[in-house]
Amino acid sequence: NMFVDFDIMSLVIHVCHLNRKFTRLPHLAGSQQNLDLAKQIRDEWMEFGLDSVELVPYDVLLSYPNKTNPNYISIVDHLGTEIFNTSLAEPVPEGYEDVTDIVPPYSAFSAKGQPEDELVYVNYGRTEDFFKLERELGINCSGKIVIARYGKIFRGNKVKNAMLAGAKGIVLFSDPADYCADGVEPYPDGWNLPGGGAQRGNVLNLNGAGDPLTPGYPAKEYTYRSSLEDAVGLPKIPVHPIGYHDAVHLLQHMGGPHPPDNWKGALNISYRIGPGFTDGLNQNKVRMNIHTNNQVTRIYNVIGWIRGAVEPDRYVILGGHRDAWVFGGIDPVSGAAVVHESVRAAGKLMKKGWRPRRTLIFASWDAEEFGLLGSTEWAEDHARVLQERAVAYINADSAIEGQAHTHTHTHFIMSVSVVFLKVSSPEEGEEGMTLYQSWHKRDNSTERDAPWISKLGSGSDFEAYFIRLGIASGRARYTKNRKTERYSSYPVYHSVYETYEIVERFYDPSFRRLEAVARVRGGLIFSLADSPVLPLDCVEYAMSLTKYANSIYQLALKHPAAMQQHSVSFDSLFFAVENFTVVARDFHQRLDHALAVRMVNDQLMYLERAFTDPLGLPGRPFYRHIIFAPSSHNKYAGESFPGIYDALFDIENAVDWQKAWDEVKRQISIAAFTVNAAAETLKPVVS
Amino acid sequence: NMFVDFDIMSLVIHVCHLNRKFTRLPHLAGSQQNLDLAKQIRDEWMEFGLDSVELVPYDVLLSYPNKTNPNYISIVDHLGTEIFNTSLAEPVPEGYEDVTDIVPPYSAFSAKGQPEDELVYVNYGRTEDFFKLERELGINCSGKIVIARYGKIFRGNKVKNAMLAGAKGIVLFSDPADYCADGVEPYPDGWNLPGGGAQRGNVLNLNGAGDPLTPGYPAKEYTYRSSLEDAVGLPKIPVHPIGYHDAVHLLQHMGGPHPPDNWKGALNISYRIGPGFTDGLNQNKVRMNIHTNNQVTRIYNVIGWIRGAVEPDRYVILGGHRDAWVFGGIDPVSGAAVVHESVRAAGKLMKKGWRPRRTLIFASWDAEEFGLLGSTEWAEDHARVLQERAVAYINADSAIEGQAHTHTHTHFIMSVSVVFLKVSSPEEGEEGMTLYQSWHKRDNSTERDAPWISKLGSGSDFEAYFIRLGIASGRARYTKNRKTERYSSYPVYHSVYETYEIVERFYDPSFRRLEAVARVRGGLIFSLADSPVLPLDCVEYAMSLTKYANSIYQLALKHPAAMQQHSVSFDSLFFAVENFTVVARDFHQRLDHALAVRMVNDQLMYLERAFTDPLGLPGRPFYRHIIFAPSSHNKYAGESFPGIYDALFDIENAVDWQKAWDEVKRQISIAAFTVNAAAETLKPVVS
Repeated sequence: NMFVDFDIMSLVIHVCHLNRKFTRLPHLAGSQQNLDLAKQIRDEWMEFGLDSVELVPYDVLLSYPNKTNPNYISIVDHLGTEIFNTSLAEPVPEGYEDVTDIVPPYSAFSAKGQPEDELVYVNYGRTEDFFKLERELGINCSGKIVIARYGKIFRGNKVKNAMLAGAKGIVLFSDPADYCADGVEPYPDGWNLPGGGAQRGNVLNLNGAGDPLTPGYPAKEYTYRSSLEDAVGLPKIPVHPIGYHDAVHLLQHMGGPHPPDNWKGALNISYRIGPGFTDGLNQNKVRMNIHTNNQVTRIYNVIGWIRGAVEPDRYVILGGHRDAWVFGGIDPVSGAAVVHESVRAAGKLMKKGWRPRRTLIFASWDAEEFGLLGSTEWAEDHARVLQERAVAYINADSAIEGQAHTHTHTHFIMSVSVVFLKVSSPEEGEEGMTLYQSWHKRDNSTERDAPWISKLGSGSDFEAYFIRLGIASGRARYTKNRKTERYSSYPVYHSVYETYEIVERFYDPSFRRLEAVARVRGGLIFSLADSPVLPLDCVEYAMSLTKYANSIYQLALKHPAAMQQHSVSFDSLFFAVENFTVVARDFHQRLDHALAVRMVNDQLMYLERAFTDPLGLPGRPFYRHIIFAPSSHNKYAGESFPGIYDALFDIENAVDWQKAWDEVKRQISIAAFTVNAAAETLKPVVS
Repeated sequence: NMFVDFDIMSLVIHVCHLNRKFTRLPHLAGSQQNLDLAKQIRDEWMEFGLDSVELVPYDVLLSYPNKTNPNYISIVDHLGTEIFNTSLAEPVPEGYEDVTDIVPPYSAFSAKGQPEDELVYVNYGRTEDFFKLERELGINCSGKIVIARYGKIFRGNKVKNAMLAGAKGIVLFSDPADYCADGVEPYPDGWNLPGGGAQRGNVLNLNGAGDPLTPGYPAKEYTYRSSLEDAVGLPKIPVHPIGYHDAVHLLQHMGGPHPPDNWKGALNISYRIGPGFTDGLNQNKVRMNIHTNNQVTRIYNVIGWIRGAVEPDRYVILGGHRDAWVFGGIDPVSGAAVVHESVRAAGKLMKKGWRPRRTLIFASWDAEEFGLLGSTEWAEDHARVLQERAVAYINADSAIEGQAHTHTHTHFIMSVSVVFLKVSSPEEGEEGMTLYQSWHKRDNSTERDAPWISKLGSGSDFEAYFIRLGIASGRARYTKNRKTERYSSYPVYHSVYETYEIVERFYDPSFRRLEAVARVRGGLIFSLADSPVLPLDCVEYAMSLTKYANSIYQLALKHPAAMQQHSVSFDSLFFAVENFTVVARDFHQRLDHALAVRMVNDQLMYLERAFTDPLGLPGRPFYRHIIFAPSSHNKYAGESFPGIYDALFDIENAVDWQKAWDEVKRQISIAAFTVNAAAETLKPVVS
């Protein structure tokens, strides 16, 4: 593909300047600064040469701390006197002392309240952690305040688990075990999280609904809004995040049993589970003081268009969010800069007379940090046209998420290798190596002769496009080395220390990694927009399906007696996958000498749609993809065959076994049908 | 359009022979005869010259009387002795005495049981009839057996209403007021229903689910089936239909108050409401003896294909059912014959070298009488490809439904007039007149300078295609004169007297009306398959939307105080309709000089899809069309803006007014958004 070369070479290396420009001020969703930035982006995209650019507003539910009544956690004595209070803000990094409007660490959409009770330490607050507490350790969290360390899973799942366990509040803290790498200094001397830093973030469980008040519909001025009581996904208990300096005070005098070793973090204390404080201090309680407000607020997406020359009604979308918790040095600016550079590159090409075969849409989403709201509302608003016309969606959130020596990337059916093969490795000592080779070398995948590609979970703006609408989607980023870097996200994630400087000093001093990611993401969209035959690979999809089917079958096989007793068979699913595989191979053979390119492209484009079911997954109407969904236990992780997986989850403890195994059989039937139905879309179009 | 002329002229006038051939034997769904007929049709379609024809089986829940333990209704005395029993079968018409396997009149999917209690007469069993009983007359049906006359609404709604009123059984009868026209003799001397005749029919409330055991998914061998307790739409009480000779015995000695005059039928008795019998007989009770069985049974659709020459991936579908309660002289054979003739006509054209621009699919559905099962299962099976590729669905159920002097016809956005203009009126004394002129003259529409086109409700096989999948759909038939013919359907509907002879002797002796309908239906599909630009009219749709919006607004205006108190505004809906109207006009103006025909055709094709909402209507997940749905109170009738309508229905008696009016506002918001979203699909494809 000639064009991909041409284009990638045109991506300008101004990422660093851009990055600096975008990170001078906080850009919290709903703030004046973020609207100003939206206007600036709109104006620049117009200058770059897009056909049209518009600000698209929605009025969604956001959540902010009360400015006069701050949030904090206290230890109170038996008289109710607050004898320790957590800090109200993070120490501001050097050079940013004059910045106003830095929102202090908080859990967006926390319930208000001042619950007061004994503390229980629940490790990461995962489903398995609560199982261990309740089933093995016999500790009841009901009516308690739980404290969970950040990491492993999405924080909203921790909050949900705490609610299910009956807790009346949850404190989240960053343990150095998860947010400080060995031999690295805290920022600004290194890239570790300082003890005064804390992770902001929303604690919703939206399951893809978008704005909590308008599930299924765009939050326009005239749209009906449900009451806050009927809102989707809001936690019913107070939640608050703290740093590890404050956490020490809450944890160091806890009583109760010692936890298992793998529950112990890296603080210089003796970890205990509680409930409550140790003898002598056991009249002390913990009190949460949470006054965060939910309010309907206007947000703005920036949407830019380049009309396709040949197929204007086929859309390729590159989207990433613009809003940041504070400066957003990594999240999102390292991604937003890539979108901006792609627009600039496209503009340059257009000035040379180029126009893509298909229409390109560029999106700067707002309020991603508040539950993917900007991207989801736009998807809801335009679901009809996107369903018929969208070829693919490429996400552009943070381009780097590790101090980064390997890169991974999650996908679906796109033939991505071709793009990676055309980009050079940015690493020192890898001169002459392609990005693909570098990736492959560093990735340690044993599976087959290709680097590891992981499943799309959630936690960024592709969710509505992929999981709800069934649009082929992908993301690519520089990441950490899974085997050698044990921390959960990069340490300063969502703290005030996510600055431009941390990127420049530690993550990507030459900005060559960022540039490589820009070349990959840009390469993907230009390839999708310009290749006469869409670069989507059904045979690759078939191989993944086989892998997923085997994997879910292995999970069920943990219950051989029950499988037999309830006559549970996976045959129909394996037949369906085999059917799909045969049909996919035939399709690609026919593709080689296809005359009607539009027709086969439609088959390719709609294949992903064919995996969605309008009925959605049980209890999750907006998660419609039958092959992939965010895990019910960790929104960040992708689960394959999620319907079967959830039916099997913890089935040994189901109240009604007959019913539980019937549900497994029903989900196998749905998965088998869906795979067969998807295969049918790839067959010759006439019976 | 040259082609339409050519084609219509080629439709052969063998309808009468075909009609006779199809009606020699009963063709009950699930029977060997109906499978044999399917094979015969498959073989003939192959001979006619289709590219391929296949039998497509599904295993669905059907319902048959118990052969050794017949269904009947008794009057029992105080000792429990049966002192009167209704007849076990209808007197068989002359010439059919040797036919075996005539299923006696029954209500398919009735619950089994032998309830015994006092009788209550509930008129037509409509919602308003039960309101009158409960609210005005103070009569409680709880624990009683109710008797309702057939007519006005779908029988399943009568059964549902009886269940809601707490009845433990329901008897359905055909009153001469509704099934005998004045001055007409009972069959065989005329076309009225004989006193021994009764109307079969299913009494499901599926709301579009198809097979009750596999809602949302095709009933294949491997498909998971829910238990009968969890099945969709089955009545929980016994139901049975009787003729008016038997009804006299049940009704003549009833006690209790006289009903309102418009509740009185044409039997020579004094109608009374009950409960129970008159003084002296008030120890007598009514007992239902119902032993009908539900059983999973294999059914067969016949599906034939003609590959499109230019756009093989665009489908035009003509479908009608094949299964009949008994001989099916009118229902379905007058429709099935039209499908058969259309296939023959297409085959003839193909032998002359013709091939349609788009792909044609012909369908002979099975088990329509059991809840539209064959057509719905096929729609579920092929939802993905149909959603992307189906241009339109034309239904071919009964071609005549009245002794017929006018014809109506229900539709969506098709420009049907063009077809009607090319067909000659079949009526005597109308030589030289087009069918359009005849229709217009006889139809009495005052609305504007065109004949009346009514909304698509349900009750035939277009339902899954139109209401669930959002495929543009239409039907056309010869009907009764709404103003002068007061009976509810043709009198012998679903009785053993629906023979070939009743059509030949009374309804269409020359078969010219049937031929005219064949020319219309055939003309529609050939026009849809061959016109370079699809003959769909968005401006027409916009006019309908305006009418519907006004109409639902008028309904709300019956509650002016509440509207004001709850700040209910229809502005957003009217703005949306206006927006749609402007966009539709612009679209058709651009259409006149469109270069990219495929692109505008896709816009036309997908417009109907844009009116569907994957979330469906409240409580009716398979009714997804926001503009049209079968009425919640009468499946046969189409309701426009059904979400708003249902929210407003009986709102003055809502328990929680705030909640009820909030739901009205929510539904207005959904309707407004849907109309705006549909408008968006018609705009130029690039912003």
